Formats: sequence, C-alpha cells, structure tokens
Amino acid sequence: MHEPPKRGRRPGAEDVRPVILEAAQREFARIGYEKATVRGIASLAGVDPKLVHYYFGTKSELFKKSVAEVVMTEEFFDSLLEIDDTAGSLGAKFLRSVLRVYETPAIGSAAVGLIRNIFTHDKSRRLLLEIYSNYILKNIAHRLPGPDPVARVNLVGTQMFGIIAMRYILRVPVIAELSIDDVSRLIGPTLDRYLFGEWPQEPSQKE
Amino acid sequence: MHEPPKRGRRPGAEDVRPVILEAAQREFARIGYEKATVRGIASLAGVDPKLVHYYFGTKSELFKKSVAEVVMTEEFFDSLLEIDDTAGSLGAKFLRSVLRVYETPAIGSAAVGLIRNIFTHDKSRRLLLEIYSNYILKNIAHRLPGPDPVARVNLVGTQMFGIIAMRYILRVPVIAELSIDDVSRLIGPTLDRYLFGEWPQEPSQKE
Repeated sequence: MHEPPKRGRRPGAEDVRPVILEAAQREFARIGYEKATVRGIASLAGVDPKLVHYYFGTKSELFKKSVAEVVMTEEFFDSLLEIDDTAGSLGAKFLRSVLRVYETPAIGSAAVGLIRNIFTHDKSRRLLLEIYSNYILKNIAHRLPGPDPVARVNLVGTQMFGIIAMRYILRVPVIAELSIDDVSRLIGPTLDRYLFGEWPQEPSQKE
Repeated sequence: MHEPPKRGRRPGAEDVRPVILEAAQREFARIGYEKATVRGIASLAGVDPKLVHYYFGTKSELFKKSVAEVVMTEEFFDSLLEIDDTAGSLGAKFLRSVLRVYETPAIGSAAVGLIRNIFTHDKSRRLLLEIYSNYILKNIAHRLPGPDPVARVNLVGTQMFGIIAMRYILRVPVIAELSIDDVSRLIGPTLDRYLFGEWPQEPSQKE
C-alpha cells in the first residue's frame, strides 16, 4: 500500500474502483464528509492516494460517486414515482424508499455525515445543494405532470429535509422513535399534495 | 463600563435589563449563539459581565430570555391558534406569524444563528431542543383537540424546520424567493392536516 502507481503494476480499474468506493463509503459513514480525507480513504483501501484521484478526482467527486450515484440512479427515481397499488400512496412509498436509504448502514451514515456539516461548512453545503439540484430536483421534476414542477419538488425537499434532520441528526424524541411505516403514513399525504395536488393560485416567485 | 457592581452604585434592574437584552439580541444576531460571549454582550451594553450573570444567569439563559421569551409568549401562541376567518387556514396563519418572526431583524437572525450550530455544537442543539420542547411543544400541544397532540406538533416541527432551514440558512433557490404569503398558502394546509386532520390509524410509537 501507499505505493505510487507504476507502469505495468497498476491494478485494473475493475479491481480497484469498487475497493476504493467501498472504503470511501465506510470512511464517509464513520467520520462524515468534512473530516474524511482522500489519504485516509486510500489507506483504508490499501492503495496510493494518487490512484484515488486518478479514478475519482476530488473528494467531492468521490463522495458523489460513492454515495449519491449508488442510490440515485434512474431506476431509483423510476421506482420512486411508479404507481404501485400495494404500497399505499405514492408519497408514502417515496418516504419509505428514502428512509430505508437513510437506514442503510454505509450510505445512510455517509448522507447524515454530509448533512451534519451543511450549516457550518460551505463546501458541504455546496455539495449537498449540487446533489440536490443535479440528482433529486432534475430527476423528479421532469417526471411530474402538473404546473410548476420545480417548486413542487422544492416543497417536497422542505418536508424531507425536516424529517431527515429531526429523525437522524437531531434525534428528536417521538420523531426518532416512529417506525418507517408510521412516518410514511403520517407524512406521505403531504408529499402527494406537493407533487400532484391542486396548486393554490399562481405562486409569485421573484425569480 | 466593566466595573464590578458596587453597593449603592448598581443601576436599577429596570434600567439595565432592557439594555442588556437588546445588546444580547444584537450580538446573537450578529455572530450567532455559539460565538457570542457574555463578555462581548456586556461590553456592547456598557456594563460589567458580572451584572449580566447577576440578572440573567448563563449565556443560554440569556439567549432564552432575549430571544425565545420575547417571541414565545402565551399571547403569541393564543393568537397563532386563534381561528380568524380573514387570515385563511390556520396553518397558513401560523406559518405567516412564524416566518414574520424569522424576518424580524434581531430576533430572526439570532434564531438563525442558533439553528446554524445545532448539527455540530451540542450545547446549541440542547438549547434549541429545550426551547422547542418547553416553549413550542408544550404551548401548542395542550391547545389541540385531537388524539396524539405531541406527535402532531412534532410533525409540524418537521415541516417548519425544513422550510426554515432551506429558506433562511441554506437559501435554496425558489424556496428562498417565495413570498411569505406564497409559502403560507402552499405549506399551510400541511400544518392544518398535522394539527387537526384525521389521524391515520394509531401510530405505534416505541416510547
């Protein structure tokens, strides 16, 4: 480990990339985005930090590839917005899917580790907003039938941010103790209304 | 300034207390709860720090008295939950009142300054949770008619936290640009449902 890449010795990308991604997930989960370093992740993966930069670029690129892209695939959004009569309301199903991601050890902890720093660390804030607008907003808005899809997804964002922050970061009693099904049943109809409900008069955005 | 209190020279509480409270509001607004110090506030008010401790106790007590108690009076909560046909839905009225507080210079900035640190500074988190449970939860829950009032107010808390964080701290485009009236019209019905709506089956809290 810690050897610089050499001609003829560099392992194939197909061997090293998943090892680095898994090390990155574990490290982001363990100490959060802000404190994690490319050097530490390389060391966990048993490779030279240069290899990490070579395959993944900067730390924020690595975060996006190891956490955001793993979850936020086209298929994920397709399935989120797929009507499925057995799953209750679409909002409830959406919530269940997202909360399950947050309760998946490596990915959930890494996402919580990123959110924990967004109020105080500008790079974390910008990375989260980039993931939010490039993955979430973009992937959901164009799938919505009604007027003002971007505002609708942003309203969903306010409710999702609130439940995630109070449940997983602040661990507010009652909210942290509800089951995923209860949260989905209670908050799901809110998301249904934001995504598909009647739109009360034209909101006068100053944009 | 900076003189210790002396017999016969201490100004009356009625003179000094409002001066200290106003200095505290300005200082919390300017640099946030975590960075503000009793010494700095005393200096702004032109009094000895001992006087601040004498009248207000610790920094967190001073924060509660200068910010939380100013806003969160019995009358404030009475008026929040008062049916008023001219104001639209109760949820919309509630939102308008709270957002107006956040857009009041000294108090709003101080509240934003406190929230900014809650994910990374445990004392801020505990202070906010204390204000949340002792002022907000307690004052609203006992006024609600339906079952499970504490869970209902906590759901309101998730939506309020999300809109406040995205609008005032993260300044997410669209959400930051909506007028108070638009936010109230769009999100108000969510609060109505949480506060007064039908309660979908019994949530199985693990408490």
